[in-house]
Amino acid sequence: MKKNEVIRKVMWGDLDSLGIVFYPRYYEWIDACGHLFFDSIGLNLKRLWEERKIEFGLVETSCHYFRPGRYHQEIRITTNIDALEEKTVLLKHVMHETAQGSLLVKGFEKRICLDVSDPEEFRAVPIPPDIHAILEKAAE
Amino acid sequence: MKKNEVIRKVMWGDLDSLGIVFYPRYYEWIDACGHLFFDSIGLNLKRLWEERKIEFGLVETSCHYFRPGRYHQEIRITTNIDALEEKTVLLKHVMHETAQGSLLVKGFEKRICLDVSDPEEFRAVPIPPDIHAILEKAAE
Amino acid sequence: MKKNEVIRKVMWGDLDSLGIVFYPRYYEWIDACGHLFFDSIGLNLKRLWEERKIEFGLVETSCHYFRPGRYHQEIRITTNIDALEEKTVLLKHVMHETAQGSLLVKGFEKRICLDVSDPEEFRAVPIPPDIHAILEKAAE
Amino acid sequence: MKKNEVIRKVMWGDLDSLGIVFYPRYYEWIDACGHLFFDSIGLNLKRLWEERKIEFGLVETSCHYFRPGRYHQEIRITTNIDALEEKTVLLKHVMHETAQGSLLVKGFEKRICLDVSDPEEFRAVPIPPDIHAILEKAAE
Repeated sequence: MKKNEVIRKVMWGDLDSLGIVFYPRYYEWIDACGHLFFDSIGLNLKRLWEERKIEFGLVETSCHYFRPGRYHQEIRITTNIDALEEKTVLLKHVMHETAQGSLLVKGFEKRICLDVSDPEEFRAVPIPPDIHAILEKAAE
Repeated sequence: MKKNEVIRKVMWGDLDSLGIVFYPRYYEWIDACGHLFFDSIGLNLKRLWEERKIEFGLVETSCHYFRPGRYHQEIRITTNIDALEEKTVLLKHVMHETAQGSLLVKGFEKRICLDVSDPEEFRAVPIPPDIHAILEKAAE
Repeated sequence: MKKNEVIRKVMWGDLDSLGIVFYPRYYEWIDACGHLFFDSIGLNLKRLWEERKIEFGLVETSCHYFRPGRYHQEIRITTNIDALEEKTVLLKHVMHETAQGSLLVKGFEKRICLDVSDPEEFRAVPIPPDIHAILEKAAE
Repeated sequence: MKKNEVIRKVMWGDLDSLGIVFYPRYYEWIDACGHLFFDSIGLNLKRLWEERKIEFGLVETSCHYFRPGRYHQEIRITTNIDALEEKTVLLKHVMHETAQGSLLVKGFEKRICLDVSDPEEFRAVPIPPDIHAILEKAAE
């Protein structure tokens, strides 16, 4: 199974008043890691949009928080495909801080294949066969 | 059942390249609406922290996305308690755009009562009885 | 001289570990208040872009910080035109907290008129006469 | 003269509807690069705060924008001290995209030495001699 890893450092601006990561920041990283995962299997989401008017939009996202992230910790985010359907792909993102290896966050993004040729009205469509084949291979 | 409403306008900086709201922004609003909900029932989270060393930290969050939010739409966010346990409270946040009344997002925050008197090691504790009573009344 | 006022509450997610507003948040509000100012004089930046392929892009921004913003303070942001040239408009944004009336931040955005008909290469152009006339009137 | 370099990739969530970086994101990176610069000369801002109740707060920030940042560009941010006074230090942050070497942004942060022992009322103080000596050496 294809896994993509990203290393990120917790910065001052990621923290709240308790000195721990403000949780919407995790979703920003998860979204970025989703794009980088697609990139790592040869699917650039910007080019898919521009060249084929296809986008993988969000249906549902979620996170479980195990331990709080703290200032200047290094975090490893590992992304893989957790489920693949006709129209949707479920990405799983797991975050560990690298010093102790503690689990911080498990996050999920359920993305649906959208035809965005009409910018005012996106329409869910089956994932095109060539793209589905790439995702299947990455999910094995 | 106590419900708190917040009206918010989608701004340019909330949008992504597709011209729709970038989903981590919804979680920023949900977090803000969580704080405003606590405020509305007489529980100020900053004072709880400072005066009683109690915080309602996140265990789990999730969102379902029904329609994308767009530039300068007015959004109404309605927050209420969906479940209350010994240590946790589940907040539900529903977002509609106000012009057509369309449902955009349903979000959940499961918050756990934490003793934060040791800033390096938060500890889950039962919600103190006086605070639990306030939450019970709001949940009815 | 036309002034536009926006009221905003400082939320938990705007704060850093010191319990004061993390300064990039001020720029997010300033950008939003810039858009709302244009709206208030009948210039919707999204429509200008879509219908006339004109955008007011940023050349320079700056902020002076006088006092820190804090949790759940109400902030009044007043926006007006500080200077108008052939191609550029300088917006001034002043932030006071409303309880004591203390000055928190003075910010500036120098925006230049761009022809964005080629999405890969924006080009600075003189502000079209009808739009310049609206800005002149607002600046008086 | 000490220079610190950080490499960062422009992510989807950094972009606005025009497909270019939303400018408050540059300030988030600049703040992070300020912290990393201090780190690189042996001054950890979190420890300074916790151990000596000293913080380098913002008096003024500014950015000039030369070219827009775009999706998945790699950006090199170079930070150095541009001026050093009794109470203040001016950091300069220059951003280039690495593929063509084009200049994107020049940013400045004027930071003042604050005694934050009273969390409700920060007070500007001269930079302590040992810290001033470290900054002088880095500025040479």
